[in-house]
Amino acid sequence: MSLIVQKFGGTSVATSEKIKNVANAIIKEKNNGNDVVVVVSAMGHTTDNLIKLSKEITSSPCAREMDMLLATGEQVSMSLLAMALIDMGYNAVSLTGYQAGIKTQKNHMCARIIDIDTTRINKHILNNEIVIVAGFQGICEGNEITTLGRGGSDTTAVALACALNAQRCDIYSDVEGVYTTDPRIVKTAQKLKTISYDEMLELARVGANVLHPRCVESAKQNKMPMRVRSSFKLDDMGTLIIGVDEMELNKPVTGAAVDNSQIRIVICDIVDEPGNAAKLFNLLSSSDLSVDMIIQSYARHSKNTNDIAFTISKSDYPKFDALKGKITELLKADGIFIDDDIAKVSIVGAGMIDRPGIAAKMFDTLAKENINIKMISTSEIKISCLVEKKYCNSALVALCKAFELDGADVAQVKGDLPDVD
Amino acid sequence: MSLIVQKFGGTSVATSEKIKNVANAIIKEKNNGNDVVVVVSAMGHTTDNLIKLSKEITSSPCAREMDMLLATGEQVSMSLLAMALIDMGYNAVSLTGYQAGIKTQKNHMCARIIDIDTTRINKHILNNEIVIVAGFQGICEGNEITTLGRGGSDTTAVALACALNAQRCDIYSDVEGVYTTDPRIVKTAQKLKTISYDEMLELARVGANVLHPRCVESAKQNKMPMRVRSSFKLDDMGTLIIGVDEMELNKPVTGAAVDNSQIRIVICDIVDEPGNAAKLFNLLSSSDLSVDMIIQSYARHSKNTNDIAFTISKSDYPKFDALKGKITELLKADGIFIDDDIAKVSIVGAGMIDRPGIAAKMFDTLAKENINIKMISTSEIKISCLVEKKYCNSALVALCKAFELDGADVAQVKGDLPDVD
Repeated sequence: MSLIVQKFGGTSVATSEKIKNVANAIIKEKNNGNDVVVVVSAMGHTTDNLIKLSKEITSSPCAREMDMLLATGEQVSMSLLAMALIDMGYNAVSLTGYQAGIKTQKNHMCARIIDIDTTRINKHILNNEIVIVAGFQGICEGNEITTLGRGGSDTTAVALACALNAQRCDIYSDVEGVYTTDPRIVKTAQKLKTISYDEMLELARVGANVLHPRCVESAKQNKMPMRVRSSFKLDDMGTLIIGVDEMELNKPVTGAAVDNSQIRIVICDIVDEPGNAAKLFNLLSSSDLSVDMIIQSYARHSKNTNDIAFTISKSDYPKFDALKGKITELLKADGIFIDDDIAKVSIVGAGMIDRPGIAAKMFDTLAKENINIKMISTSEIKISCLVEKKYCNSALVALCKAFELDGADVAQVKGDLPDVD
Repeated sequence: MSLIVQKFGGTSVATSEKIKNVANAIIKEKNNGNDVVVVVSAMGHTTDNLIKLSKEITSSPCAREMDMLLATGEQVSMSLLAMALIDMGYNAVSLTGYQAGIKTQKNHMCARIIDIDTTRINKHILNNEIVIVAGFQGICEGNEITTLGRGGSDTTAVALACALNAQRCDIYSDVEGVYTTDPRIVKTAQKLKTISYDEMLELARVGANVLHPRCVESAKQNKMPMRVRSSFKLDDMGTLIIGVDEMELNKPVTGAAVDNSQIRIVICDIVDEPGNAAKLFNLLSSSDLSVDMIIQSYARHSKNTNDIAFTISKSDYPKFDALKGKITELLKADGIFIDDDIAKVSIVGAGMIDRPGIAAKMFDTLAKENINIKMISTSEIKISCLVEKKYCNSALVALCKAFELDGADVAQVKGDLPDVD
């Protein structure tokens, strides 16, 4: 008998009706002869409402107490789901992070799972019970309740699947799978049957909000097959995420995405001395500021200065703002220029590694649309260009056409894959 | 330094504003130089809303999962209260039933506390932290979350006060103390400065909804002084509940109450054989039916039968209804008569023990009001009469006047009492 881990997001369990629907999805998997371990998020807007409540008390809530507060959200949804399954005639038991043996680091609100003691879960599985585990939470040294931060429930699901040697980890939500690009912008976007971990990671980083990179990384390390699928279309198999060596790469580019959440910062006329870039990025990282694209211009010999441009997340701007004075002083810079009229368009594909000319084709496509490129960054399987915000949708449409992302599926499964029902 | 346990009910923590108000009440006690351990209920209607949610899933929710669900209510209020205290500059930490070491029996939804391991709470107290404990919940063998049933948070507070050798246990709610009778019916009802455990127990049993009998019993056994007071009037000392030997009993009757929640059942013409009453009440108790007043009529010699009348709680009627056929058969009874047009009026007072004529005065008072008595039951410190429902308020008013419960305080404190701020 094989074990499937299923994870249901907040929209999938938003009402009692939807919880019953989720119970049906679980029963379907159980009736296929599988053991099932389920991970749930909090119902709908529960977490947002709890955060709002805490803000009414204080503008800076204690992190330990915030975890205590937020952990209740999953406890509510999991107990209701267990009631629904029991009512439908199945054995089910819900477990808090603590009861499920999910041990984390001590840092509240963004803890990482360090170990899962599966003793209790395995006991329930042997007892033919459907085990429902609270996502997003764990317990650290001293029996303190912790939460895992953004994407936490997905991370719980993948970590459990790995610890329990599951056959597969299915992430159910309100999207039907991973698309070549954002279907809200490109109507003809195609759902991918398969995508590699690395492509999924790059897509997640460039703006596709399907999965948090943390859980994809964890699945990749453990070679745990994942499936992104809809809890409202149970017959749809969604998208399978697997290792690149298990896929046949027919096309160089698998997906394209737009990210509107960044701003560009240019530090002008930095005196050209060795170590200035290191000083800058050490300072930024010590304030927990993640930098994405970076360009350093050539030193202007006449002035012996250069510029450094980089992008950060808009939500991190207050952190940066607090550092501005220190930066100008430290780098003897002439000024700081902020540009929020930008968008990042990216193409991603494991197939681009062995095929030259992909970058040239991307730049050419944008040029033909009269779109100016402000910055470029690349990885082995990704090329990103910064453009003016007003062009982001037309850029995406043009790139999807050029790289055939609006047609048939891009990558086909090769060889034997894990059972998919 | 002495330790005070404070308990705040659901209405006291119903909104973020009220939670801040509660934080002030705690800080006041802390600034008096006391260590403070706080027990909280769930905010306002949280528990009702969670029960409603479970009813949307199933009409008969699994008890284990119900406890999992309900335990979240206190976890929310306690973490918000801890945030408020920390925001006001005090060290505070909230603990779930499990973290607080509250060990219970295994019976879900009505577990009893069997032990409190105070190690962790004491560590926090030594660390000068205000400890906030989730009321109503504990943990049983196998690390399962349990809840204590009705009056659970009061019970948690008294049990913690006893386990921690507290100086006093203060129960804060939206009432200002214990009154001689229901102020909604008798406008001139007086707040008692003191009442004995036994009187409080009898008052709770005859309809005064201030405290659950379970926590009063526990306080009595451990001689733990309790105070019932309002969280909205912090300067009001409320009512102190202590042992009868610490009180001066000026008047025979301390309080009067009405209970509209019962129905009377008469089993008619039971064949007069030994053991019939035992058969009946064994059957009722095996269905978990609590019987209050009982009267067995004299056997009618002509027919060789008698009647048994008793009262049960209205909410237990479905349980009784299921037994009706069995009862008639078992007792060879002629019929069962149900009367829900009744109310029970009671007077309570530790001082009636040594004073004869109290019962006579009560019956006389009712007779003068032309109120017929349907049943009578007595204990050492209580006399209850069943009357027609329409007379319950006028009966109460007349009794309060007769026994001077609408005048000055009935019982005065004698000798040294624990500090009351």
